[in-house]
Amino acid sequence: MAVIVSLDGERAKPRASLEPLSALVADDMLRVNALIVQKMHSPVALIPQLAGHIVAAGGKRLRPMLTLAASKLCGYSGERHVALSAAVEFIHTATLLHDDVVDDSALRRGQSSANALWGNKPSVLVGDFLFSRAFELMVADGSLAVLGILSHASAVIAEGEVLQLVTSNDTTTSENAYLDVIKSKTAQLFAAAARIGAVVANRPKAEEEALEGYGLNLGIAFQLIDDVLDYSARQAELGKTIGDDFREGKITLPVILAFRRGNDEERQFWKRTVETMEQKDADLARAIELMARHGSLRDTVERARHYGAIARDALGIFPESAEKRILLDVVDFCIERAY
Amino acid sequence: MAVIVSLDGERAKPRASLEPLSALVADDMLRVNALIVQKMHSPVALIPQLAGHIVAAGGKRLRPMLTLAASKLCGYSGERHVALSAAVEFIHTATLLHDDVVDDSALRRGQSSANALWGNKPSVLVGDFLFSRAFELMVADGSLAVLGILSHASAVIAEGEVLQLVTSNDTTTSENAYLDVIKSKTAQLFAAAARIGAVVANRPKAEEEALEGYGLNLGIAFQLIDDVLDYSARQAELGKTIGDDFREGKITLPVILAFRRGNDEERQFWKRTVETMEQKDADLARAIELMARHGSLRDTVERARHYGAIARDALGIFPESAEKRILLDVVDFCIERAY
Repeated sequence: MAVIVSLDGERAKPRASLEPLSALVADDMLRVNALIVQKMHSPVALIPQLAGHIVAAGGKRLRPMLTLAASKLCGYSGERHVALSAAVEFIHTATLLHDDVVDDSALRRGQSSANALWGNKPSVLVGDFLFSRAFELMVADGSLAVLGILSHASAVIAEGEVLQLVTSNDTTTSENAYLDVIKSKTAQLFAAAARIGAVVANRPKAEEEALEGYGLNLGIAFQLIDDVLDYSARQAELGKTIGDDFREGKITLPVILAFRRGNDEERQFWKRTVETMEQKDADLARAIELMARHGSLRDTVERARHYGAIARDALGIFPESAEKRILLDVVDFCIERAY
Repeated sequence: MAVIVSLDGERAKPRASLEPLSALVADDMLRVNALIVQKMHSPVALIPQLAGHIVAAGGKRLRPMLTLAASKLCGYSGERHVALSAAVEFIHTATLLHDDVVDDSALRRGQSSANALWGNKPSVLVGDFLFSRAFELMVADGSLAVLGILSHASAVIAEGEVLQLVTSNDTTTSENAYLDVIKSKTAQLFAAAARIGAVVANRPKAEEEALEGYGLNLGIAFQLIDDVLDYSARQAELGKTIGDDFREGKITLPVILAFRRGNDEERQFWKRTVETMEQKDADLARAIELMARHGSLRDTVERARHYGAIARDALGIFPESAEKRILLDVVDFCIERAY
């Protein structure tokens, strides 16, 4: 069984990876990907072009993989998980397109973002198209339970995005307010994706709720680590850009902790850089230095571990199985990405 | 029974109005409006603020009124039409919010648009929220048939909006391509709204299709007249702004007809003004003068009459009733708005 490795201690086991999860759902994912390509088709050529760009850019497909793996954990042997995984990915893709418009992002997963290539307008509209397609897939599946879970998740995601917008550039944002944002904008879809695995398998409510709790807490941990990675030396080593959140003035937990633990002069620095957005070349390095001084990256990882532990315990009601071990390892993977 | 009045002839009857429709559904609309206010609530205060702004700006509420009236035409006496009308209006409101972002509109129904007041970002996200809420309302209603109709309509609307974007500033847009755009972006929701009236009443497929055909053709006629009004002397008399479409370079049927019927010099005018968007003060007046010369407003109204006639005939399978007469009068109203 996987164990959580301490940030600076020796590794008790090899680094966790997504490989076992990918292998578990590989056959299903081929069909999910084929369905995604089929369902993003439209006689309006710009739609498959733009949607294809963001879908091809890939990403880990973590959310649909959660649906597939959760359905296997629940012993499901039917076909519905394929279309519903595609629906989950479409909702995710639609929110990415709208996010990039809202954040004025030029890059997405290291490539030019759709809004940078085609402008904001088609990104908004193709997002709407994919969102509608997601609901068409669910309607074809025919489960009101699934429709209820994902329509509610979508509303909560939008709420979280608006809340994030309202708190942006506000250094007085509390840790709780930040947590509300990431629970809504990120963790809600992880929770829904995992829960659907139990719904298609027609498992008891307790198992639905266990998978929902797993997904929710995994999603929180995932986002916390994402927010750490944006300031992480390891991310820089891998050749990935860092500092995107900083340049956008996003108030993530690493900033919140550094601000709260800082002295007056340091708080003035944060106000100038992420509140009034007057940034100079050396500011990102200074931000990282302040985070190191106050342990705010380390402690954000600690917070992530806390939610990771809850995610792991949520699966406690399931008997041991290969699928369960893989889902537990996903928690480790999401946290170990940080270092 | 209402008759269609010729554009310049004497009136055979008093001008058609929406009053009879409003009166027919007045009680239901009170409950629809109450539900709209309730369902746009969120702990994130900006959401009800922004949504409340566009909902309060009003508009005619034509689409939910169609659902309510169609359900009455079908003899429905239950409660489901109220929530589904609210869902229809939420989908419409969500598309308006996104439209205004895509069109960079500063005004909506004579008031500042939401994007002008709060910026594009919350408009995109609150649109997503309202769209999700619409699906939550449908899920609570529990009809997969309704969910199928409105999820499909939403996908087609988004397709139409992208198509409109692709054809914008293109004077070579054909009348057919323009018709595809307005069928998708406008008429599809009219069709779905009317059809749902038969679905809740559990009426035979033929009646569902009759109402869908009524809504679709009414929606086309409605949009054609909307596009006329943007260049209309009558609109200007009423103190409403004209020329919004012209200033945005929107290629509507009045422009398409004037371009196709114009000489080389006139076509250069259209290319300069709505294609390369170099507009001078006197250009709107010149555009209206060219439309008068080639009868392009008059003939756009004629095209609208054609679709209006189809809408009227679609209701032929329903026996005479007060509700049917009112729905027929709505067709006249939508066309008579032009003069």
